[in-house]
Amino acid sequence: MAASSTFPLKDDLDIVIPTIRNLDFLEMWRPFFQPYHLIIVQDGDPSRNIKVPDGFHYELYNRNDINKILGPKASCISFKDSACRCFGYMVSKKKYIFTIDDDCFVAKDPTGKDIDALRQHINNLLNPSTPYFFNTLYDPFSDGADFVRGYPFSLREGVPTAVSHGLWLNIPDYDAPTQLVKPRERNTRYVDAVMTLPKGILFPMCGMNLAFDRSLIGPAMYFGLMGDGQPIGRYDDMWAGWCVKVICDHLGLGIKTGLPYIWHSKASNPFVNLKKEYKGIFWQEEIIPFFQDAILPKECITVQACYKELSKQVKDKLGKIDPYFVKLADAMVTWIDAWDELNPPAKVAGSK
Amino acid sequence: MAASSTFPLKDDLDIVIPTIRNLDFLEMWRPFFQPYHLIIVQDGDPSRNIKVPDGFHYELYNRNDINKILGPKASCISFKDSACRCFGYMVSKKKYIFTIDDDCFVAKDPTGKDIDALRQHINNLLNPSTPYFFNTLYDPFSDGADFVRGYPFSLREGVPTAVSHGLWLNIPDYDAPTQLVKPRERNTRYVDAVMTLPKGILFPMCGMNLAFDRSLIGPAMYFGLMGDGQPIGRYDDMWAGWCVKVICDHLGLGIKTGLPYIWHSKASNPFVNLKKEYKGIFWQEEIIPFFQDAILPKECITVQACYKELSKQVKDKLGKIDPYFVKLADAMVTWIDAWDELNPPAKVAGSK
Repeated sequence: MAASSTFPLKDDLDIVIPTIRNLDFLEMWRPFFQPYHLIIVQDGDPSRNIKVPDGFHYELYNRNDINKILGPKASCISFKDSACRCFGYMVSKKKYIFTIDDDCFVAKDPTGKDIDALRQHINNLLNPSTPYFFNTLYDPFSDGADFVRGYPFSLREGVPTAVSHGLWLNIPDYDAPTQLVKPRERNTRYVDAVMTLPKGILFPMCGMNLAFDRSLIGPAMYFGLMGDGQPIGRYDDMWAGWCVKVICDHLGLGIKTGLPYIWHSKASNPFVNLKKEYKGIFWQEEIIPFFQDAILPKECITVQACYKELSKQVKDKLGKIDPYFVKLADAMVTWIDAWDELNPPAKVAGSK
Repeated sequence: MAASSTFPLKDDLDIVIPTIRNLDFLEMWRPFFQPYHLIIVQDGDPSRNIKVPDGFHYELYNRNDINKILGPKASCISFKDSACRCFGYMVSKKKYIFTIDDDCFVAKDPTGKDIDALRQHINNLLNPSTPYFFNTLYDPFSDGADFVRGYPFSLREGVPTAVSHGLWLNIPDYDAPTQLVKPRERNTRYVDAVMTLPKGILFPMCGMNLAFDRSLIGPAMYFGLMGDGQPIGRYDDMWAGWCVKVICDHLGLGIKTGLPYIWHSKASNPFVNLKKEYKGIFWQEEIIPFFQDAILPKECITVQACYKELSKQVKDKLGKIDPYFVKLADAMVTWIDAWDELNPPAKVAGSK
């Protein structure tokens, strides 16, 4: 089916970048990112001066800014972990967010052409998802594709797409054990496909190259408590992905994965990663079945209501694994409160 | 993860081809198919002489043969419809089946190399499936791929793969309405991926380029009652796909889709197709929810038991749509009885 031709104006999207260093990587992205506004979330030492190449529009928040803006609620924003990026989602006022790591560069498609990752993400978000039945020719809304024989006609309208999950060439997003076992593995396979994640199945959402519709799913894009003072790291995006998928399934929203690729330049240290992931490797064996079985009541019709309900279930059912999950459940509530404070419901004309 | 290196001997696989014409298309497949045995199921006029190129090993069954072998049970095998191919699955004694339409030719990969579809199917079947969690880098058992960060370690062993569903370049497998609307659409997108269909989601299984493990799922590969004397056509493979997916989900078996591609040469007539599909377009809107909700009792631990249970549910729940489904439910039972007659349970050494 023909893809939608509407392309959002630059005023509809913010690019959120968590970082601890100068943003030289933006030079390579200049032709694609410069029209957009950047929200830079500076992690670590707030006194450090982060250099941003000339010509980019941006706002930058360091830890002092976060503390000032959120007050005591700043406790829900991680420190010394790229999970801090979700603060950027909260302060944005745009409809769409694209978030990318500062070690990700422009990839090339098989013809050698630079890939405009942002454009592909927006295309994914502007076209519907089809989570209720699998289309064997992948995204029916891609150029030259459609629904195949046997796809029920009643399901072809699809549902709104809330999330676009992009992939990585070169360094794949492996866990520490796999990194240790396969130090030389590189992803060279360019899979020319976008697909909807079916309803009812979870996926490992990576925050490296991710876009979403803030107006549809923003409040569920919380990256949890990681890094400084926490018993775990490198599960920030996974946590968000599990919550987001359960809520999208409940609210009838779609998640796409596949294109676009970025070029992931440098593998993080597997030994450091193992330390961060260690508890997660055990915990995820209980967390994933919890999310697979999680049911949200019909009364939950907003993302916020879904998320607060989920936080209750986390406290009840995962709190038994470790006190960390009780703290995390509380932080989930704090996050929603902070979100609503910074994003008050729009006043409808004529309402009192 | 490294793909399995064991490749089945030619004695482990039959190629099943339904046809009404001379099998000239085999010339192009000679380098790939000649080592294997062919089961040709001749549809239509049994007095017609089908020519098979020299040098192929084959057995050929026409309608008279089917009637002779199955007696009254031959009523479950469709006539004047490629659904008759499933007779070939029943008379085979091999572990694996590959079935292909006679208008499908060797496709080329993006480097211009001929694709050995059979080899890719076997590779798909020899490596496990992962239906319980989505791997964003597609089949973790492909060369150069693995499970990504966040994939639970307890699920990495996977489950046995029962079905490998291949795709089509050139003429896509569209329904009649889509063919009518887009007469010139061709599939030129080579997606270099294989993936497991997640548990709990149905897919439109196409019989054009399909392989399966007969020992795991054979008795569920019934292509229904289509063609001569039936109110419907072109839903034979869809029917098999719905039943197979529900049973694979119940028994913990996997289905893969994606590679390999074949080159589908000629679109069938959309007006003829519309006549065949007409009722199916309405019926599938009720059939698919039926299969989505179908639950098989724990006691069903064989494919045969699952299939007979499903036939009961078809009669009970779909019989209301049209008397055709009562007839189909009976044919499902006849199919299993015929299967068991031709494939008696192996006698275990020492049993009486």
